[in-house]
Amino acid sequence: MEHDEEPAKIRLFVEAELDAGVSVGVTAQQAHYLKHVLRLGTGASVGLFNGRDGEWAARIDGIGRGWASLAVHTRTRPQRPDPDLWLVFAPIRRARIDFVAQKATELGAALLWPVFTQFTVMSRVNTERLRANAIEAAEQSERLSVPAVREPVSLDTLLAGWPTDRRLFVCDETGTAPPVATVFGASTLPRGTPAALLIGPEGGLAGAELDRLAKLPFVSRVGLGPRVLRADTAALAALACWQALAGDWSD
Amino acid sequence: MEHDEEPAKIRLFVEAELDAGVSVGVTAQQAHYLKHVLRLGTGASVGLFNGRDGEWAARIDGIGRGWASLAVHTRTRPQRPDPDLWLVFAPIRRARIDFVAQKATELGAALLWPVFTQFTVMSRVNTERLRANAIEAAEQSERLSVPAVREPVSLDTLLAGWPTDRRLFVCDETGTAPPVATVFGASTLPRGTPAALLIGPEGGLAGAELDRLAKLPFVSRVGLGPRVLRADTAALAALACWQALAGDWSD
Repeated sequence: MEHDEEPAKIRLFVEAELDAGVSVGVTAQQAHYLKHVLRLGTGASVGLFNGRDGEWAARIDGIGRGWASLAVHTRTRPQRPDPDLWLVFAPIRRARIDFVAQKATELGAALLWPVFTQFTVMSRVNTERLRANAIEAAEQSERLSVPAVREPVSLDTLLAGWPTDRRLFVCDETGTAPPVATVFGASTLPRGTPAALLIGPEGGLAGAELDRLAKLPFVSRVGLGPRVLRADTAALAALACWQALAGDWSD
Repeated sequence: MEHDEEPAKIRLFVEAELDAGVSVGVTAQQAHYLKHVLRLGTGASVGLFNGRDGEWAARIDGIGRGWASLAVHTRTRPQRPDPDLWLVFAPIRRARIDFVAQKATELGAALLWPVFTQFTVMSRVNTERLRANAIEAAEQSERLSVPAVREPVSLDTLLAGWPTDRRLFVCDETGTAPPVATVFGASTLPRGTPAALLIGPEGGLAGAELDRLAKLPFVSRVGLGPRVLRADTAALAALACWQALAGDWSD
């Protein structure tokens, strides 16, 4: 059933299957948000999405301390495929990594993958926290999906297992890489090519890492202008430029 | 005197004229940073820039509680013109507006100008704080200038005094604006055209505001894709796309 009904303003991500007539639960945190932050009760309207079945309107048919049950009734939007863009990034400090997960979700990244490089200062990544940030950003940005979050790997492991049909764009601050508009422009990159962006840590990629990457057949180097960008700014700028030139902002 | 000397790692913005042989002071905050955060003393090397005279190497020739005196000796980089891009934006909450000032500086905006629109929640803007954020970001990003910060105005006042030779790109989330790559692409916009980006508040621009803007001869509407971007994300994404397509990232 497809209606012209407005999508609900409150949107929650759930894992469960969504279909007319099914009843789904939410996490304790989501239930708390509905009951205590939004002060919603039985009968209130909530939008739901799971990354597969589109967006559905649902009504709260039961709510209590740490739980809520929602009756799914009407599909408000069909599922839409996301652009096939991964963000591979050296982990950075807490506030900035949260920010990268949120912004990358808004900007439509399909997958977030932390990678340890030579100058990476952080030695651990809380992928649960990354995923929570991605879910929250997806709920607020009308996305119908949540980016996948992979467990961190070393650059060696990443490259050893790289799917060679996926173009890896390495953001390169040495000033010698071709401009981003040239590299992402339609003339050099057929639309729909699976893509990934690699963003180094605050100290940049090491010279030896850049040399090694430049020799790989699936790698293209990308320059982001003459100013020094922080790692989080570079990630965002590269995502926005890719969407504008090769992703779904140009449709 | 121009040498191939490496630019100093520590860079400070000063208002004073910079030239070989002059001695300049710094703010109490900068002196504190040099002495207590970096633990530098007499003889240490510091880079200086003022937005006019390029970047200069200097040596601390005196430092105390809340003051430092620097002897300027060698120019390390010539001044470079910045792209002529303004960011006009509805003020948003504190952490996010700091963030916009920092990121816009890294991304090369020449001027930051808060504007009050119909759905703007904030009623005051701390422009001193905006400027402090911009200075700090310029010091860290190898920029040789600091964006100007204007006092906030209403949208009415902004438009009444708009310099009509400056293109105003209005980021429009209604889904009907042409894609950003088309609008910023070289075919429609001669390189070097003075430009400004207008970003609405979290609730977007009002319908009547968008209608009014669309009728102005110096306005172009710009679409940033199918997902809903937060105001700060939209500002960053638009800045990055403009630099990539019409600014100095494509040189």
